[in-house]
Amino acid sequence: MRAVCVIGLGLIGGSVLRAAVTAGRPAWGATVSKADATAARDDGYSVEDTTEDALRRAEAEDALVVIATPLTALREVLRQIAWHAPGARLTDVVSVKDPVCSEVRELLPDARYAGGHPMAGTSESGWHAGSATLFANAAWAVTLEDDTPLEAWREAAGLALDCGAQVTPVSPAEHDAAVARISHLPHLFAAVLSAVGADGGPLALSLAAGSFFDGTRVAGTAPELVLAMTEGNRVALLDAVDDALGRLGAARGSLASTGSLKSTADAGYAARVSLTDLHDARRGSTTVRLGTPNARSRLRTLGSQGGRVVALTETEAKVQSPRQPN
Amino acid sequence: MRAVCVIGLGLIGGSVLRAAVTAGRPAWGATVSKADATAARDDGYSVEDTTEDALRRAEAEDALVVIATPLTALREVLRQIAWHAPGARLTDVVSVKDPVCSEVRELLPDARYAGGHPMAGTSESGWHAGSATLFANAAWAVTLEDDTPLEAWREAAGLALDCGAQVTPVSPAEHDAAVARISHLPHLFAAVLSAVGADGGPLALSLAAGSFFDGTRVAGTAPELVLAMTEGNRVALLDAVDDALGRLGAARGSLASTGSLKSTADAGYAARVSLTDLHDARRGSTTVRLGTPNARSRLRTLGSQGGRVVALTETEAKVQSPRQPN
Repeated sequence: MRAVCVIGLGLIGGSVLRAAVTAGRPAWGATVSKADATAARDDGYSVEDTTEDALRRAEAEDALVVIATPLTALREVLRQIAWHAPGARLTDVVSVKDPVCSEVRELLPDARYAGGHPMAGTSESGWHAGSATLFANAAWAVTLEDDTPLEAWREAAGLALDCGAQVTPVSPAEHDAAVARISHLPHLFAAVLSAVGADGGPLALSLAAGSFFDGTRVAGTAPELVLAMTEGNRVALLDAVDDALGRLGAARGSLASTGSLKSTADAGYAARVSLTDLHDARRGSTTVRLGTPNARSRLRTLGSQGGRVVALTETEAKVQSPRQPN
Repeated sequence: MRAVCVIGLGLIGGSVLRAAVTAGRPAWGATVSKADATAARDDGYSVEDTTEDALRRAEAEDALVVIATPLTALREVLRQIAWHAPGARLTDVVSVKDPVCSEVRELLPDARYAGGHPMAGTSESGWHAGSATLFANAAWAVTLEDDTPLEAWREAAGLALDCGAQVTPVSPAEHDAAVARISHLPHLFAAVLSAVGADGGPLALSLAAGSFFDGTRVAGTAPELVLAMTEGNRVALLDAVDDALGRLGAARGSLASTGSLKSTADAGYAARVSLTDLHDARRGSTTVRLGTPNARSRLRTLGSQGGRVVALTETEAKVQSPRQPN
């Protein structure tokens, strides 16, 4: 089994290291956080003294390198990889994909790279917040461009499956547009809702119950993590925010003029039903042969239809879809 | 113990009936829903054939009547009470208070009334969704105006405590302003977020995880219930929506111009910390004598500071506050 070298041992990186070891892979990590390094070693995991040491070992053992640092630290890590392991097998778990793919293309043109983004987390952070089961049944986006080596995609997707996740094949731009709507906008909404509620003073906060606690939960995430995600996906997030402002403004206008919120409530209800339907039922299943010329576009199409890769061999990917694929 | 007559046996009314019986009170209900009536009887509860029968029994047994119908059915129920039990002991569990208090004042000037609103629920509805423990440790607003008979307030608050809740004394207008922010706006945000996410297609919905599921949960509430709540609190909700549009617009402007969401994320985080602090720690405790001239204003002041009544005798209310009361 392919060895795994994880750079960054916070919530996500720490969980990848644990899950890789649980899956039986040789795996080690490195982190600039002394606290995370000590905690990981205390838990019995292999942590190299420096990122350089970890990368040299990855080069020697032909390991898959996983970048699990914040976006802000990406360029520095890529420069270190360029020096110590320029042709590395490489993936990442950063929450935006287009900026990461561009930087990898620029700084590591010879890397065998496919980007990744596991859709799992908590509002806590650091090694202690992680677990080997964090990714169980989660979606894990793995980027697939026309020039992505299928072998690199297979390595990244294989790690995701070993971590218990299911793989969504997707282009970097489509990924960033989607997560703007279902991850970054929710963080922004939670922050705004939280502040508007607190503006109501202790009375409002004391009366707050399920709807407010749920709607503001991710506002409890460390602000620097929220900023790294949201600011890093500026263009796509602006699109999503504009859609939200449009819908909220229309609701405001309707409530003020006719007193009705019917179209807003109906649209929200229908959308929520679509969400639960899509997650509850994965009926169709199809197999994509990885050796064929149209394998990349076929996988991306299935991903865009909500399909997820649930099994992978050297030559084939099995994709489950919300409905029977066309 | 005071008998309880519950008009309307959906999620909230059905839970009040169960909780009142669990507390050892004589209690019966009535509902225009044949399905809810049958289900409640099958579970062993006393359900009169008609609202009139239930109200006549309330008059005969000097019971506390609890209106647990949607706001849209309120006037009809009040007319029936005016006919069969015009001086009734009366409360309600409708989610807005100023409109209800006004109608009671108009149609039932002799009722011994204090309005109520338990801050608990699920996205399900009907008798089957309820339980005797729905209100455990929840806040339950009970309205207190300068001319509210303290005896009526004590009856409504006593029922709330018997149901396992804690009582927030509050004026109808302050209640409506607060719940606009922490209940009605969250429902509107959930609907908008849900629709903006679904606009991203099956790819976005497939990648959706915790932040989106939590932020859209209450969009799964039956739209007619959402409309009854939100449209019934139009003026206060418009205020809250305008604040939200202002904050979201400011975030949009900052992201587009400087690329920063720092002030939005920081404000949201600080507000969420205030929320959890206020709910985790109730340190101070004070006693209000109900016989004194300033009892009403003292109780409302403590409520506005986040205080909750946790025990009640004929003459005293014990109030727990987030901090030592001034």
